[in-house]
Amino acid sequence: MNLLLLHPGEIDGAGRARITGRRAHHAHGVLRAQVGQELAAGELGGRLGRATIENISPDELTVQTVLDRPCPPAADALLLAVPRPKVLLRMLAHAAALGFGRIVLFRSWRTEKSHLASTAMAPETQREHLLLGLEQAGRTLLPTIDYFPLFKPMVEDSLDQLELPTQRFVAHPTASVPTSVLQLAAKAPFALALGPDGGFLPYEVDQLRAHGFCAVQCGPHALRTESALSVLWGQLDLLRARGSLPE
Amino acid sequence: MNLLLLHPGEIDGAGRARITGRRAHHAHGVLRAQVGQELAAGELGGRLGRATIENISPDELTVQTVLDRPCPPAADALLLAVPRPKVLLRMLAHAAALGFGRIVLFRSWRTEKSHLASTAMAPETQREHLLLGLEQAGRTLLPTIDYFPLFKPMVEDSLDQLELPTQRFVAHPTASVPTSVLQLAAKAPFALALGPDGGFLPYEVDQLRAHGFCAVQCGPHALRTESALSVLWGQLDLLRARGSLPE
Repeated sequence: MNLLLLHPGEIDGAGRARITGRRAHHAHGVLRAQVGQELAAGELGGRLGRATIENISPDELTVQTVLDRPCPPAADALLLAVPRPKVLLRMLAHAAALGFGRIVLFRSWRTEKSHLASTAMAPETQREHLLLGLEQAGRTLLPTIDYFPLFKPMVEDSLDQLELPTQRFVAHPTASVPTSVLQLAAKAPFALALGPDGGFLPYEVDQLRAHGFCAVQCGPHALRTESALSVLWGQLDLLRARGSLPE
Repeated sequence: MNLLLLHPGEIDGAGRARITGRRAHHAHGVLRAQVGQELAAGELGGRLGRATIENISPDELTVQTVLDRPCPPAADALLLAVPRPKVLLRMLAHAAALGFGRIVLFRSWRTEKSHLASTAMAPETQREHLLLGLEQAGRTLLPTIDYFPLFKPMVEDSLDQLELPTQRFVAHPTASVPTSVLQLAAKAPFALALGPDGGFLPYEVDQLRAHGFCAVQCGPHALRTESALSVLWGQLDLLRARGSLPE
């Protein structure tokens, strides 16, 4: 928890907030925060700043907040074939922690149909895990989540309207382009598409290619989707940072 | 499961193997493998090759193997402050899947003492998770695991004898060196040290620095250890691949 994330209703007109539950427990037991100490804080959907601790116990935390700067928008987009429920929820937290601003879930050919009916697809369950990621990222803006139950209509009818970043990549273990040869524009956002653990069908990769996605592989063998998310984000973010370096 | 990983006792003198349990279930239910089909296969601790399916049911798989090439050794090393048990087991599988050949576990100042007494520290539990990673990596050689209950003696007395790769990095969110400016030697192995979720103490980072570790940060905020493993491996592996490119 790099950020004490407050919900709009928790902050009164004078900037004070009283928090119970997980966040109070974490501040007390893990961060070992003390009265008078300042924590990085933010209001969900709103501004970032500091919270000074006025009272703290294992169950309750009272803080005085000064929230004075906006949270920068996040423009990276993740397109993700729905994985199994536990993995989906972990990946939503990872994606929010890595700073993705938009998540597009969809069913691909190798997606297990049973995954689509799980409680991990419920917005309120997903939201809890996105909040954990925001606390890690020190951000206040929830990523948006879209869901498309069918791959073909998503790609053919909706993809162009999603206004995704123009730098687009799809993970494909048998692609001929390794990430190590890519060049990215400095500071520009990207969209990353990840298939299910068995990968996309060649037909699905071709469909994404036709919409500007470059098929890339990030190593000598297929990774699990959960590892691939962090590996590829790390590589693309590094290449973006190097985009401004002389080479 | 990119590799059918066979245990030495399972293969008879004529190269045939009969498998039950998880691997048979996976080959039948997930891979939907058929009689006559070839799977990538390997013998734990031994050679890689192919297995042709002779019989398959949900509970049992019979294959004829031809294992004719060695598994390349893995020289990358991971130094990991013991995280909470569930995370440790997932990270062992990730590390084996990413191709680390050596894992060094240790206690650092912010490591919770209770983590050290969990069943996740038992070699047989760890081995099951390493095997999952090998199946993903298509490798047969189990990473070695060393464990040091104290940080200071590990660094001062043992680190030099571990013969770690000479390219050494420690993840430190407040380091002044971002991974994006690093240069790595082409094809050379590296050692990566990861602290607990709260990070290493500055004193601990200094100790590692004195033994050749370069403190690096991989983004604008601290990541969870589990994300940091994949992010940093992806970045260092990419920089190693680019080590051979003209820049």
